[in-house]
Formats: sequence, structure tokens, C-alpha cells
Amino acid sequence: MMNSIPETHRDLLEKPSIWHVATVGPNGEPQASPVWADYDGIYIRFPHKIGRQKWRNLNKNSKIALSATDPENPERYLEIRGALVEWETEGAVEFLDQMAKKYWGKDEFPREHVGRLEDRITAVVKPEYCTTMG
Amino acid sequence: MMNSIPETHRDLLEKPSIWHVATVGPNGEPQASPVWADYDGIYIRFPHKIGRQKWRNLNKNSKIALSATDPENPERYLEIRGALVEWETEGAVEFLDQMAKKYWGKDEFPREHVGRLEDRITAVVKPEYCTTMG
Repeated sequence: MMNSIPETHRDLLEKPSIWHVATVGPNGEPQASPVWADYDGIYIRFPHKIGRQKWRNLNKNSKIALSATDPENPERYLEIRGALVEWETEGAVEFLDQMAKKYWGKDEFPREHVGRLEDRITAVVKPEYCTTMG
Repeated sequence: MMNSIPETHRDLLEKPSIWHVATVGPNGEPQASPVWADYDGIYIRFPHKIGRQKWRNLNKNSKIALSATDPENPERYLEIRGALVEWETEGAVEFLDQMAKKYWGKDEFPREHVGRLEDRITAVVKPEYCTTMG
């Protein structure tokens, strides 16, 4: 299986970089918003919630782009284009905890902000094409 | 004329925030990449170059989204959706210099990186809708 994330910029997925996710809305208009994200060597994952805009957009058009700069050097960036392949329902809160650890250094995502457990999902994205700078 | 950027998050356009611009490509797929940007109270501007992907995309579909987090607090963000209204050709290098000042504290954008002067343009975006967090 080809791994499309260039070695030179894989560190951006290890660092607590903020990823800006672009999706396409019902009228063909782009939408963008920041997420926490992680990479397992094959897929990119980010926490999400049923009902939100990105969830609605991706259910109609699974194409997605994620863009981030290196938190230590804004001249370096990585853009990943690909497609949503799945909404994972199992382990969504555990994944949130992992992201709270990665981004905040906390062991747990605050339970008062989790909301309805059944709404928590994890977006699974297959990278297809990358652009880099720096 | 209505000003659609919420007062509470206008500081993100004054700070050297990195803006992630989302456009839609020829096959209805989103694209995202970081830019420097500024706001004059009515329009958002960012430096660009003739021939690049965002230029090609926006010439076919003028709809655009820009997303940034507060460089001092990644929990705060502003997303701006709108449309490209013009590619400014005059003053494009002067605008690059202004952005070099804002983002790097330098008086001039390095001339060796300007490239062909006639390719330098400034995207002018009219904000139509915003979302915020934090």
C-alpha cells in the first residue's frame, strides 16, 4: 500500500499542529475549520460530531483537504487531499482523550464537553495527494 | 454596507495569523493551503500568483473560505466564507511588502522571491458569513 505522506513533512502529523479541514457544501461552496488530527501511517483521523457541517458535507461529497503549518515554523506546510472512507463510532471518546493528550498534554478530554456520547464519531480519511512547502 | 466580521474575532485579522484558504477544484474537490491575509474593514486580501491552483480554481468558482486560529490561543478561531470579487494587479508587490512587515517584521518581501512581477496579484475577497469559536 502506497503511503502518500512525504517523509519530509510527516513530523507535522506528529506535532500538535492545527489542521484546517476543507469540505464542499451543498451549493458547491468550500467550508474550512480547524481540527485536531492524527496519522497511523495509513489513515488520517480527526474527532467530529454527528450533525455538524463537515459531517453533512462529507456525507454528500467525501472529498476533503487538510492543511497545516508547522507550529514551530509557519513557512513549512503540508496539504493533504483525499477522501473520507469511514465514520468510526467505536472508540470515539478514547480518540478524543488521545488528542487531548497530544494537543493539551491532558490525560482526558473534559467529560463535560463530550456531550451526547452517541454523537461522537471519528473521521477516517485516506490521503491521496500531498503538496508541501519549506 | 454590512460588515460581517464579528467584533469579537476581528483581532485575528490584525494578528499575524496564518489563514488557510479553501477553494473548490475542477472536479468538485476541495483544496486548502495557507496564506498571509489582511482586512481593510470591508475586504479580505491575500497575495497570490497567476497560474497557481487557487487562481485556477477561483476563476471557475469564486466561492472561498478562510480559516485561522488565534496565534496566541489555538482554541479561538474564525472562519470566513465569501467570494472572490477581484484580482488586483496594481500594488501587488507593495501589498507583499506590507504582509512581510505584518508577518515577519521586515520592511520588504525578499526581491529574489518575487518572481515575475506581472504574475503577482492580490486576491480581494468579500466576506459573507462567519463562524467563530472561543
